Amino acid sequence: MTNITEVELVVVGAGVAGCTAAIYAKRYGVDVVILDKGVPGGQLMTVSSMENYPGFPEGISGMELAQRVHQQVENHGIEIVQEEVTAISRHDESRWLVQTGDGEWLAVAVIIATGVFPRSLNVPGEKELRGRGVSYCATCDGFLYRGETVAVVGGGNSAVEEAMYLADICEKVYLTHRRDRLRADPHIGQQVIERENVELLWNTVVQEIVGEEEVQQLRLRNAGTEEEWLLPVSGVFVAIGTIAHTDWLEELVELDSGFITTDMSMRTNQPGIFAAGDIRDTVIRQVTTAVGDATIAAYSAYQYIAKHRGEAYGEYAGPEQNQ
Amino acid sequence: MTNITEVELVVVGAGVAGCTAAIYAKRYGVDVVILDKGVPGGQLMTVSSMENYPGFPEGISGMELAQRVHQQVENHGIEIVQEEVTAISRHDESRWLVQTGDGEWLAVAVIIATGVFPRSLNVPGEKELRGRGVSYCATCDGFLYRGETVAVVGGGNSAVEEAMYLADICEKVYLTHRRDRLRADPHIGQQVIERENVELLWNTVVQEIVGEEEVQQLRLRNAGTEEEWLLPVSGVFVAIGTIAHTDWLEELVELDSGFITTDMSMRTNQPGIFAAGDIRDTVIRQVTTAVGDATIAAYSAYQYIAKHRGEAYGEYAGPEQNQ
Repeated sequence: MTNITEVELVVVGAGVAGCTAAIYAKRYGVDVVILDKGVPGGQLMTVSSMENYPGFPEGISGMELAQRVHQQVENHGIEIVQEEVTAISRHDESRWLVQTGDGEWLAVAVIIATGVFPRSLNVPGEKELRGRGVSYCATCDGFLYRGETVAVVGGGNSAVEEAMYLADICEKVYLTHRRDRLRADPHIGQQVIERENVELLWNTVVQEIVGEEEVQQLRLRNAGTEEEWLLPVSGVFVAIGTIAHTDWLEELVELDSGFITTDMSMRTNQPGIFAAGDIRDTVIRQVTTAVGDATIAAYSAYQYIAKHRGEAYGEYAGPEQNQ
Repeated sequence: MTNITEVELVVVGAGVAGCTAAIYAKRYGVDVVILDKGVPGGQLMTVSSMENYPGFPEGISGMELAQRVHQQVENHGIEIVQEEVTAISRHDESRWLVQTGDGEWLAVAVIIATGVFPRSLNVPGEKELRGRGVSYCATCDGFLYRGETVAVVGGGNSAVEEAMYLADICEKVYLTHRRDRLRADPHIGQQVIERENVELLWNTVVQEIVGEEEVQQLRLRNAGTEEEWLLPVSGVFVAIGTIAHTDWLEELVELDSGFITTDMSMRTNQPGIFAAGDIRDTVIRQVTTAVGDATIAAYSAYQYIAKHRGEAYGEYAGPEQNQ
């Protein structure tokens, strides 16, 4: 027997976008639940120190911000249910059926905010040594490599940030990048170049992660000379970007390069289905844009739900009282 | 002799949108200045406690958030220059001339983030008694009316929030609204109705603010019966919404109902001119949406400036170093 629960709004994902959307929706008087597969905090958890999220002049770690946002969700009396959403489909004219491994939810509206995940190198040894030297999050695992030599793979902002973070902990950090220049913002790109215990390996491609039980070496190739060589490291941090897991949404909503297409009101092409945060097809993915998206998605979902309730939007009856 | 300063980016307005845009731009390596007419904090300053800005589970006042964001601007080495921008015009093919009362700025790109301002009632006595009982900001002036009787005019979120805030300070608060229901979100609308020392005056229109030297009474009219009467109060807080001051921009950019029209990248119809925050034509105006807008505007401005510099976007040369 399957357990079916009715709500007005299901938010999929308990990252900062999902949590913000739920808080706003709750304050609009919407009956809302957050479903999350149980890896809390989303992409945010990988950020060691953000100096550009407005309100924290001394910076804040992604982990702390995630905890604060979860506290805020709790303070609003919103439940985060640990269920992984596997499918969303039309139930009837006015409701969507949200299926999870553990049950089914009927909702008038759905906000999808499942975020993005680290991209894999797809080289031999990566899968086998994951969690035994292969990591996708310096903030999460960096302390395991205190005083050791590690490599970061990538050339964008997150690679540079991971390298800077690890440079504080490790004796030596190699930053291997397959091109001859960084994609990172100049501000932090220059910092990493000047950092003493960080060595940049330009034009360098990782061919294999080598190790018995644990990571021992990287097999590298110079993209110019094609020369191969081995670099001894005890850990490797893969930071080559992110992808959205949207395969399960292909039949439901319009996607562009794997990200959900929305309009400025965060509406997808399906009435009642909205998207917010990193999973959206957008020009830049930041905490600031995630909370902005989420606010708009909650507002649009509220309007949609109010219409469904038969309320005129933004109105609700006060007592019919005249003085 | 006029003082002309060249910069890459001028941000107009030091509210949360302008500050966030400047921080992001600075971190992209852009030479940026903020021009502000000198009323710090923007619309934010009027908010007594925000419980929905992600990261502050116990809530934060607009004033404190504004101070924190200004500290963050200072930490980034960005200057806020107190000059009121009076005109923006094309200087040459690649630069805009930004004129203020005190000087002129030449900039490759401009982000307009001047926000919104309280709307006036436009009734007799309002202008004359402004600052002597007529206020547009309970957070700013509420403490002057400790233990007294005041009125709030309006029926939306800000009116209800001002009434709740004043109810903590004043003996009695009248909330006068010209309709028979609130426009506020249900969450807080219900709270104000249940509040003991707040009395709602439905269907009530303010005709005149009466007083010698200071506010003494409101002349009110019942919208149904047309009956007029006098309500003794020592202060009146006008909270009937906001308007953008965009008259000076009419010749420059496309407006819609007085707000600046942008695309999803925060571009106006003028190349190099961007907009962010409450001044944009948008469905909802919150701190969250302001910081989201600002991030996107800064990114778009950076791309525009990088192109102007002759850089390929998002790239900058590392040393031409191969191992």
